[in-house]
Amino acid sequence: MNETGRVEAFSDGVFAIAITLLILDVKVPASVGPGNLGGVLLEEWPMFLAFLTSFFTIGVMWMNHHRLFTIIGAVDDALVGLNLLLLLGITWIPFPTALLATHLRTTGNDRTAALIYASTFFVMAIFFQILWHYATHTAGVIPTEKEEHARHITRQYMWGPLFYVVAIVLAIFSGTACLIRLSK
Amino acid sequence: MNETGRVEAFSDGVFAIAITLLILDVKVPASVGPGNLGGVLLEEWPMFLAFLTSFFTIGVMWMNHHRLFTIIGAVDDALVGLNLLLLLGITWIPFPTALLATHLRTTGNDRTAALIYASTFFVMAIFFQILWHYATHTAGVIPTEKEEHARHITRQYMWGPLFYVVAIVLAIFSGTACLIRLSK
Amino acid sequence: MNETGRVEAFSDGVFAIAITLLILDVKVPASVGPGNLGGVLLEEWPMFLAFLTSFFTIGVMWMNHHRLFTIIGAVDDALVGLNLLLLLGITWIPFPTALLATHLRTTGNDRTAALIYASTFFVMAIFFQILWHYATHTAGVIPTEKEEHARHITRQYMWGPLFYVVAIVLAIFSGTACLIRLSK
Amino acid sequence: MNETGRVEAFSDGVFAIAITLLILDVKVPASVGPGNLGGVLLEEWPMFLAFLTSFFTIGVMWMNHHRLFTIIGAVDDALVGLNLLLLLGITWIPFPTALLATHLRTTGNDRTAALIYASTFFVMAIFFQILWHYATHTAGVIPTEKEEHARHITRQYMWGPLFYVVAIVLAIFSGTACLIRLSK
Repeated sequence: MNETGRVEAFSDGVFAIAITLLILDVKVPASVGPGNLGGVLLEEWPMFLAFLTSFFTIGVMWMNHHRLFTIIGAVDDALVGLNLLLLLGITWIPFPTALLATHLRTTGNDRTAALIYASTFFVMAIFFQILWHYATHTAGVIPTEKEEHARHITRQYMWGPLFYVVAIVLAIFSGTACLIRLSK
Repeated sequence: MNETGRVEAFSDGVFAIAITLLILDVKVPASVGPGNLGGVLLEEWPMFLAFLTSFFTIGVMWMNHHRLFTIIGAVDDALVGLNLLLLLGITWIPFPTALLATHLRTTGNDRTAALIYASTFFVMAIFFQILWHYATHTAGVIPTEKEEHARHITRQYMWGPLFYVVAIVLAIFSGTACLIRLSK
Repeated sequence: MNETGRVEAFSDGVFAIAITLLILDVKVPASVGPGNLGGVLLEEWPMFLAFLTSFFTIGVMWMNHHRLFTIIGAVDDALVGLNLLLLLGITWIPFPTALLATHLRTTGNDRTAALIYASTFFVMAIFFQILWHYATHTAGVIPTEKEEHARHITRQYMWGPLFYVVAIVLAIFSGTACLIRLSK
Repeated sequence: MNETGRVEAFSDGVFAIAITLLILDVKVPASVGPGNLGGVLLEEWPMFLAFLTSFFTIGVMWMNHHRLFTIIGAVDDALVGLNLLLLLGITWIPFPTALLATHLRTTGNDRTAALIYASTFFVMAIFFQILWHYATHTAGVIPTEKEEHARHITRQYMWGPLFYVVAIVLAIFSGTACLIRLSK
């Protein structure tokens, strides 16, 4: 068992970078007619909506990560590994975001892109559950005085992945409907 | 109420990354005639001026953020959320910067680009006001011994957004005038 | 001799950024026929496998770095320099990753790309050995009460570089075989 | 006067990101003949040498920054501003690095690129001198017990900028000579 300081610092770094890299996929339109910039940008709404949705999803996941680690008092190697799996999901998010921004309006590809996008968030919610399940079932991770708080959080997060199941089902029918659902 | 340590660390990360990513939009000119590099670079002055303006704007916002959080003693979920909104603005800045660098000299698009650029800074100044208003009006956020200091800061920042209103008005007439105003 | 705090913070930053930048080389396919996105993505498996392999290699190296610095109690200039050499390797990883993703299937170039990829990891394992050798042989770096732990780690890591020698030998025959070996 | 903690954290972030972003300008060659990858990469030696030179320059500057801030005990607004100027230089480095990598071998442009590259480092060395001069001449920045150490550092760094003057003079005659001088 080790203290959580450097795991939190490393995780914060990855969250902060991933959330900031999202802007690199918001592309400046290159060939624009005179006085036409405003119109061209408005047409790019899926790019902006995908950016915002991913930004707030990473932001909320950072807040949850933060909350879990105010309760987790010590980490072992397995927990560091599970945390790494979670960070894999976080660093991955810019890719499905760019995929959705590019292909939401190319014929027949919107549903594939939305499916990958929604599945990413679903898998991450599952990773969160696994990490939290391990933390709450391993002796020494959670200090005794915080166990009540931990149980409260378990009840709160239990249904989290279901939100993304709805989005995945929507993606099968329409990429746009899926994105709008996730952005809320 | 939680301590502010990890919120500051995450915010510092986002500020540091956003300010460093700005350089990615300072593009190396690819096709340059023999001995012509100096001239080509001089022609790209809007790109360099936009880079510098955004750099110092993020830098000053970081200094202000730093100053506010030396007074803020504890955060609740709403404050973490408002801080996330502020960070959304910070991560967004590279996009209008690149937009302005690319379109300051494409006919009829300079004013649109400058308007988006100046509006970004205006909205961020408003986000700062909201965060600070919430912090000063919520019990437990600011320790009693720092309340006098907090009131001093409120008076200092009150007119901040006005600076950007001037820039927005200038943008309606000329993109270049707007950028020069903001760079001062 | 100085305390290790800021060296760890700087290293954590570099590890976190390098691991997150990997996603920038996972490119969104641009020209895709209607309904063909899924198929196009499946064909890009070397890109995804190279991403995953590099992600977990950096992740494991961060865990090792973390472990070594729980034992290292103080750093001198030489140790900071050796750590910088290690970080050079970490920042370098996105390049051979992209090289392998691009050229694993261009005729006759897969082995060159795999050789550079595997050699990068081999050189980094050697850098780790040098840093650790210096740390364990310099008075004042490792506190007396942790010397037993340090000897345990020395025995554990001794054969680390050999893993990559196998990958290098495989690269001489087949780029794909080398990548699959490293991904395990 | 404030404590230096968050200024150091922000600076570490910027240094870590700038040093890691350098790899983004090491481009994977796209169109390579069968079995020709090795040869193509060898021809790109200016790209690799510029990467290494910039990496170690940022690395050494980080070590110097680190050293100065072990002596600096408190910062005022002016010092935070001077530090921001230094960070501007650090975030700027990827641009002249890419410029040199691209134009070291385009006819007649190598000297312009090398001049901008060497001048960047010269200006940064001057920024370091200004920051340090301010720190050593402002009451309250350096604790009394560290003044002797501070004077020692002043003597050590006095001639630092001269190194880059030599590189600038070389750049006037040959870009390659300048880069080789800086890489040592």
